[in-house]
Amino acid sequence: MEKRVYNFSPGPAVLPLPVLEEAQRDLLALPGTGISILEISHRSKAFDKIINQAEANLRTLLGIPDNYRVLFLQGGALLQFGMIPMNLLRGTGKKANYIVDGTWSKKAHDEAKTQGEVHVAWDGKPLNFNRVPKQSELNLVADAAYTYMTSNETIQGVQYATEPDAGDSPLICDSSSDFLSRPVDMKKYGMLFACAQKNAGPAGVTIVIMRDDLIARSPADLPSLVNYQVLAEGKSLLNTPPTFAIYIVKLVTDWLLNQIGGLDKMAELNRRKAMLLYDVIDRSNGFYQGHAEPASRSMMNVPFRLANPAHDEPFLKQAAERGLCELKGHRSVGGCRASIYNAMPIEGVQLLRDFMVEFCEKNQ
Amino acid sequence: MEKRVYNFSPGPAVLPLPVLEEAQRDLLALPGTGISILEISHRSKAFDKIINQAEANLRTLLGIPDNYRVLFLQGGALLQFGMIPMNLLRGTGKKANYIVDGTWSKKAHDEAKTQGEVHVAWDGKPLNFNRVPKQSELNLVADAAYTYMTSNETIQGVQYATEPDAGDSPLICDSSSDFLSRPVDMKKYGMLFACAQKNAGPAGVTIVIMRDDLIARSPADLPSLVNYQVLAEGKSLLNTPPTFAIYIVKLVTDWLLNQIGGLDKMAELNRRKAMLLYDVIDRSNGFYQGHAEPASRSMMNVPFRLANPAHDEPFLKQAAERGLCELKGHRSVGGCRASIYNAMPIEGVQLLRDFMVEFCEKNQ
Repeated sequence: MEKRVYNFSPGPAVLPLPVLEEAQRDLLALPGTGISILEISHRSKAFDKIINQAEANLRTLLGIPDNYRVLFLQGGALLQFGMIPMNLLRGTGKKANYIVDGTWSKKAHDEAKTQGEVHVAWDGKPLNFNRVPKQSELNLVADAAYTYMTSNETIQGVQYATEPDAGDSPLICDSSSDFLSRPVDMKKYGMLFACAQKNAGPAGVTIVIMRDDLIARSPADLPSLVNYQVLAEGKSLLNTPPTFAIYIVKLVTDWLLNQIGGLDKMAELNRRKAMLLYDVIDRSNGFYQGHAEPASRSMMNVPFRLANPAHDEPFLKQAAERGLCELKGHRSVGGCRASIYNAMPIEGVQLLRDFMVEFCEKNQ
Repeated sequence: MEKRVYNFSPGPAVLPLPVLEEAQRDLLALPGTGISILEISHRSKAFDKIINQAEANLRTLLGIPDNYRVLFLQGGALLQFGMIPMNLLRGTGKKANYIVDGTWSKKAHDEAKTQGEVHVAWDGKPLNFNRVPKQSELNLVADAAYTYMTSNETIQGVQYATEPDAGDSPLICDSSSDFLSRPVDMKKYGMLFACAQKNAGPAGVTIVIMRDDLIARSPADLPSLVNYQVLAEGKSLLNTPPTFAIYIVKLVTDWLLNQIGGLDKMAELNRRKAMLLYDVIDRSNGFYQGHAEPASRSMMNVPFRLANPAHDEPFLKQAAERGLCELKGHRSVGGCRASIYNAMPIEGVQLLRDFMVEFCEKNQ
């Protein structure tokens, strides 16, 4: 069998090996059905059990209150960037606050501009997106339709330690790249969403957790598949959902509950993994340079540069030779990036740490 | 290992066994990568090869001309029901012709009404949707934004033998449930689309084939993920596409090309399968009653009723005992339905035919 490498890709990203093994074992036929998960009806009892368990697992892990719906949608975070202002901003006569702290919140802001008036509550661009804002820096307009944030910026590797206070407006959070990596206080959010392909499953499903009063705001002139209210009434089965991707979300959340032991434990493990890398960077006397200010450092994505850009290519090549793969930085910023989501084993991070130490010693 | 049954589900539906076996074999790591297809970056060379091959296979199978784009999108046919009028009707001051010949075209018509003026060019409802229209029955408005049709109605089992003539308006076709089941003359269509989960792959990807001049009509005030022009410029990689579903489409189209030998051969095999069932129905002296008029009969979905409704339950139960599953009709029409897509082996249809003959003899 093909040897698996350590995959530091920012997403689609590494999945827990026990999840892949269970999916592989049952791929020709789900136990008790004689039908593959790829072929099974979304109206079948077997799939009902899967989607209900996936939702129950998410409710347990995140402590989701009863007045929030959990939706399994398609289209990735980018469709949410459009749907949020289509449903909650257009036609309201209000403004929406956008906190712009990296590439993804900037993209969400740009999409929202097609639908209504958008107010930039903070812009990290002049700082090269190297940190998240302090509460005192936020310039929020009052009576906003909502306040939008991105809890972890995958490309710049900046992450909020705690939620900002959005005042009287509902807080909407793109949590795509730190979803399920640590506990959250759901009551602070009007809506929290995440594409699955970092911590929750494969590409092709987006999880939207939304408070009932926000769902009720959807205007009637929107087609069904971009209308939160219609989607919520359809309970993720308005049309055929991405059945396989939801099945993997069920397996991943089973793993988080039963093998990891919940999000407190996951967060602690993630912190230990991240510290291994930040320590090397901090002790390298500038050989490695982290992007984010320490207080805003992401526990999920660790972007760094080698001070001498001529080292980039041999660094990536030698890492790959040891099975440490997908470490190239995003094409928009260059350098390197180690994405160390939930499913990246600490052994993989230790190997990367050891390699970074060794490469630094040899080339300093 | 779990024994596989014959799955007559209307979708998600049966997939070719060699496709499932290859996906299973490689699920932990794609050859040459050490990374699962569920984990692989959509920007990687390995995935590039997969999506390009999937497109090339579709172009070969369907003879798609160079002035058509092939897009792999999310959201199912239902998102297309909304996107088509959002992109091509809203704000044009024109009307769109809708040919309503079953549940799905009716649904598409209802979604379009939220975006602009819709003209019903033919309505099969008074006939209980038991056939498609004749060309002479179509009442098309001139200078329409487009004319919309559904080539095969999954629930009613009616299918066009040849494309209707839409005059000067671009013909848009929902081919979800007969895509890749027979050759089509792409030049007759402005756009043809299909969700994958009947003939092309698992749920989670929708294939849109669209002529350049229609793509160019998308208005600028639409968010990216519902804007055909932006999506086409992004070449299906505007955001993370449903990588696994596209991989399965690649395997299914490989199978069609290399193991079946193309769409002419597939169509002939599909016709033989369908005739096995229609023959039993026609020779049953009314014990089984088909829904569609013979000239409109679908080669993909064979809905039928048992004249005595008390026979429904024992029929379905005894069929399931023989491994003939998912034969219950759609909840909106009742009765039975055998969906016999490309991947349903003729052996499965023969077994169903034999069972139908036997059940009729015993209970007549």
